[in-house]
This record gives sequence, structure tokens and C-alpha cells, in this order.
Amino acid sequence: MTGPRYTRLMDSLPASVPFVGPETQERANGAAFVARLGANESVFGPSPNVLKAIANAGAEAWMYGDPEVFDLRRALADHHGVRPENIVVGEGIDGLLGYLARMLVEPGDAVVTSAGAYPTFNYHVAGFGGALHQVPYQGDHEHPEALITRAEEARAKLIYLANPDNPMGSWHGAASVQAMVEAVPEGCLLALDEAYVDMAPPGTAPALDMADRRVIRFRTFSKAYGLAGLRVGYAMAHADLIASFNKIRNHFGLGRLAQAAALAALNDQDHLNATLERIAASRERIGRIARETGLTPLPSATNFVTIDCGRDGDFARAVVAALSKRGIFVRMPFTPPQDRCIRVSCGIDADLTLFEAALPDALTEAAG
Amino acid sequence: MTGPRYTRLMDSLPASVPFVGPETQERANGAAFVARLGANESVFGPSPNVLKAIANAGAEAWMYGDPEVFDLRRALADHHGVRPENIVVGEGIDGLLGYLARMLVEPGDAVVTSAGAYPTFNYHVAGFGGALHQVPYQGDHEHPEALITRAEEARAKLIYLANPDNPMGSWHGAASVQAMVEAVPEGCLLALDEAYVDMAPPGTAPALDMADRRVIRFRTFSKAYGLAGLRVGYAMAHADLIASFNKIRNHFGLGRLAQAAALAALNDQDHLNATLERIAASRERIGRIARETGLTPLPSATNFVTIDCGRDGDFARAVVAALSKRGIFVRMPFTPPQDRCIRVSCGIDADLTLFEAALPDALTEAAG
Repeated sequence: MTGPRYTRLMDSLPASVPFVGPETQERANGAAFVARLGANESVFGPSPNVLKAIANAGAEAWMYGDPEVFDLRRALADHHGVRPENIVVGEGIDGLLGYLARMLVEPGDAVVTSAGAYPTFNYHVAGFGGALHQVPYQGDHEHPEALITRAEEARAKLIYLANPDNPMGSWHGAASVQAMVEAVPEGCLLALDEAYVDMAPPGTAPALDMADRRVIRFRTFSKAYGLAGLRVGYAMAHADLIASFNKIRNHFGLGRLAQAAALAALNDQDHLNATLERIAASRERIGRIARETGLTPLPSATNFVTIDCGRDGDFARAVVAALSKRGIFVRMPFTPPQDRCIRVSCGIDADLTLFEAALPDALTEAAG
Repeated sequence: MTGPRYTRLMDSLPASVPFVGPETQERANGAAFVARLGANESVFGPSPNVLKAIANAGAEAWMYGDPEVFDLRRALADHHGVRPENIVVGEGIDGLLGYLARMLVEPGDAVVTSAGAYPTFNYHVAGFGGALHQVPYQGDHEHPEALITRAEEARAKLIYLANPDNPMGSWHGAASVQAMVEAVPEGCLLALDEAYVDMAPPGTAPALDMADRRVIRFRTFSKAYGLAGLRVGYAMAHADLIASFNKIRNHFGLGRLAQAAALAALNDQDHLNATLERIAASRERIGRIARETGLTPLPSATNFVTIDCGRDGDFARAVVAALSKRGIFVRMPFTPPQDRCIRVSCGIDADLTLFEAALPDALTEAAG
């Protein structure tokens, strides 16, 4: 029994995974984190209406979700001023990025992203054999012009840009992003990940133009809407591109409860706005905590603050480890020079008080 | 703007989807179904403990699910007497079948299934360019020997067998299935879909042997456990095969609520057993209703009864349409000669009373 014959591509893939979950660290630590500030979740939680919708939907949990996700797509279309044919909903942006890579990337095809940008995008591209071209950040911002230039040189099929950016929290204004869209080379597609755009200043997202075949926009209920635990993301694009997802997606992959919860979340914009205020206040406080310990918080258009620890990646990694030992879960950028930073998600006051108390000792331990 | 360059495989795929959901039919009909007996869901619902778990987990909906699905995998391992390394949990069996096809199937690779068996498996195989070989049923049973013979002839990488079978409700005993496993050709894998095995007579599932590299076993919380709306399926196999899923799966694809609900469902075996009794009683009643209208119910080891309407596929399709017009959602096999049948899921008494009342008129309309 030699076992199954995998594809050549599968045999070539590493066993590595893009992110280790906090639960894995908790099991290794033998204790739960006291403050969960590493996954850019919304500690402020979803709308109370969502909790009611979830409880009510329990009685319908025996039914498969609508594979067309009709009600949610219609509501999203109304919300964004587009049509339901321009929207595909899936198992988080992660799931949709996987489908997109599958749709475009054959072994050896060029794909362009920023060195240190979202690892899960890279994971999906590698998973379909794509040749990943990585462009450096410019001053802690992704570099649209450099991404475009590299895409032209490499004849890339796909470019990834997160705006606002994760893990740096930086952003470009709508005009810069629109200029990038206009510059996308013929036959290339820009995957514009706007997971954090709800928290960005007005004027960060370019207008939605569903006639434009050069860009697909990703949004999520996992961040500002506080529903990471249900995994609902969506993408908006030209109807032809959206229809192509239907050739390959897991049609019954999005459960009934997830659909009901996302719809309830969308329908409570007051809760969203209240959350955005809490996020803004939390960003301010994280910034103060950082400055009080001699660190430099970077400007953020997201629900996290990336903090420059002023030294190298080894030091920042030691800070993350020292915080983890003290029950504080944070993450950090993977790539130099951004890995001089730690990344702290917004949290409720109790979480930030724990972070504030632990940070000085963690810095001392990391330095010593 | 010509738009993105898809892979050659994508360009070759049809826009068709394996199943149209009942919600799509309801929108076309302009009315909701009064009895939902077409998707083999468990109308009896999940355990009350699951409903409590769902309501409680709402407060944790802001957190991503554990990407290792550790607690649920450990509980499943204990339940089945295997190890957590032998279990992968995913977005329904559908999602896991998609991953499996991706792991094994390159364009042109041979895959064997039964003509008229699960269309979603075929969808995933086609989605990776596999060459599907379809073997006829034998007397409304899948035909293990013929599947093996065809796999040998075609040098297939993958064979699909559902035991019990959907859409016919028939089954093979453990000894026959084990004999099939023993006969799987070198370098081939048997995907054994046991979604319905919870409802089958004792002795239907072969013993679990996680050292055997020739077979992977699929189970689900969508059927007997009544959790289709949360989409949790799992597979059990040799640890090497299970580890390979980690190279490509959507690691954060399974939400926190889904994991919590499935764990609560697994922990209430009393509810499962009570549901199995209700399913058995419902099967009996569907059989009586069929016989009273002159039709022939087939023996079933599942939570549905496939009813031989005694004529051809056109007639059965007309019966399904006539039932739909009367608010009764049922489905039917796609392929002759099995398409002489309709497939009716078990339901609560009120559902079956509606079915009983509508069937004679539906038959008259279909005949006329």
C-alpha cells in the first residue's frame, strides 16, 4: 500500500500554514490568553440584533443555507448601490481569495504582492503553483506604482493590494487607488482587499464601478461587524467575473446561520457606527500606551495599531513572546523592516489595561 | 479592458451548478414550500443542547474559530476510537470532497463513480479537469466490483462510493465494503461517503482502520445530527492523507459557532438515538403513503425513501413538478433507470400529512 497519488503540485507544497491560531498558543502555554489582541477581531462584538438573529436561526439550523445567498446579496447590493450579480459571498475573504487564485493561476503564472503583505493570499497563490513576485513597502505603505511596474514586467495575471494595509495599518486615499486601477495592465486583475475599509477615513475607498473589469473588491463581516466566528466575506466585481466563481465554489458552503447573522449585522448600521467610535478611541489609547513606554505608534486606518519598537525583528519577536507569556495575544509583521513592529488589535478598556500593565515588563524582558 | 485571463481549465468549465436550492424554486414559485422534504435534512432538528450552545456561542461570534478545530477533532477521535491526526473537519463533506479532488486530480486523471451518484463529487472532479468514468448501478445499488474493475482499467486515482447510497437509499454490508477496500488498486484511493451511515442498520460501516491508506471515510453533522445550516463535515483517514489537507485547506474556514454546535451535537447521543427512531418511523410512514397510491417504496438505510413511480423519468419529473406546485419540495435521481423514482426525505408528521394529501393529485396531474 503506497497510498494515493497526489498531483505534482501537491507533492511540491510545504506543510506550513499561513497563521497559527491563538488557541494553539494557548494550548502550548497551558493557559488562555487574558487579552486577545492579535487577530484584529472586533472585541466590541456584533450587534445585539445579530445575537438575536443567531438565537432565532438556531431553530432553522437543520436547513442548508440558500446556495445563492440571495437575501444577503440583495441587501449588500442595495447597501453598496450595485446589483446582486456583482456580488459573491463566501467562507471569509480567505475562502474567496482561494477561489480567485484557482480561477486565474496556473503553475508558473506571475502574481504580484508586497513583501510582508497578507500571507494567506500568498498561501493560496502558492497552492495553485503561482510564481509570487514581492515588491517592498515604501515607508510602511504598500507601493502601488511599484506593484504595477512589477506586474507589467512579469506579465502578471493578478496583483494584490490591501487598502488599508494589514499588517501596517497604513492606507492610500481613493484617488491613489483609483489611479492604480487605471494603470492595471491589460489582462491583469487587481485584488483589492478592503477588509478594513470600514474603519478608514472617508475617502479611502474609490467609487464602486462594476463595469470595470480590472479590479475585484473584497469586504468582510469579520472585522468592523464583529462576526469573525461566522466567516462571511464577499467580493464585488464585474458580473462576468462574479459568475465565474459559480463554476467552482462550494455552493452550499455558507451556512444558514452565517447568512442570517450577516444580514442582521448589515441592517444595524447604528451598531457599526458605534463600533467605529469605540475603535477610534481604542486606537488613541493604544497610541498613548505605546508612547508612554517610549515606542512609536504608526498612524492606523484599521482596528489595530502597529507599534514601532525601535529595534530589529528579533527584538519585536521577543516582545511578542514576552507579552504572550503574560497572557496578552498580539501579532507582528513577518518581513523586515516592518518586523521591527508589533501589531495590537483594538480592544475593550479591560483588555487595554492588561496590555498597558504588561508592556513595560515585556519590553524589559525582551531587552534583557 | 478585456478582463482577467482565466486558466484554460476555468475557460472549459460550464456555468452549471450541481444543485438548485429549494429557495431558488420558492422564489420562482412565488411561495415558500409548505413541506421541505427534498434535501435530506433532518426536519427533526438538532439537540436542544445544540440550540443552547449556539445561543451561548453568539457572545463569542467576534472570535475566529480555532483553525486546528482541536476540541471537536479530539471529541470525534474519542467517539470513533481513532486519533485527532486521523481527522480533518471542513465546510461540509462537499468542501472536503473539493479539497480531495484538488489533492489528487490533474487534468485528464481518471476518477470512477456510479452513473447517477452524488453530482457534487462529479462537479469537483470536473472542476480540476478529471476524466470521470461512470459505472451503472446494479439493481438500484452501487456496484463495488464494477467500480473496482473500471478503476483498474482506467488506472484511476480516485473512486467514489456512497454507503448508504444517495439517491437510492440502498446499502452494502460492512463485509462487502471491506472487500471493496481490499481490492482498491495500488495508487488509488476510495472516497467512502458515509453521510447517511448513522441511519443504517448496525454492521453497515466497516471497522475504522486508520493504517489503511486505500480509503478515506466522510461523515457529517448535516444529516442525522440536524446541523445542515452550520455545514460541518469531517473525514477520517491515514494521518499522512489528513495532513495533506493542511497544505491547501481554508484554515480559518470553519467558524467558531459551527465548531461549538457540532461538539454539542456529538455530546448528545441520546438526541441522536431519538432522532434515529423518528427517522425509522418516518420511513415506515412514507412507505405506507407510497404503497397506498400504488407506488413502490425502495428499502432505505437513510433519512429518505426513494419511491419507484413505475414509469419513466419524464413521469417522475412531472410528479416532482406537480408536488412542487402544491408546496411539497422533493427531489429525484438524475439518471435512467433510477430516474423513474422520486426521493422523499423523512419529515415530521405534519410534513408527511401534507405529502400524503398532495401525492394522489400530483400523480393524476403527472399522468394526465
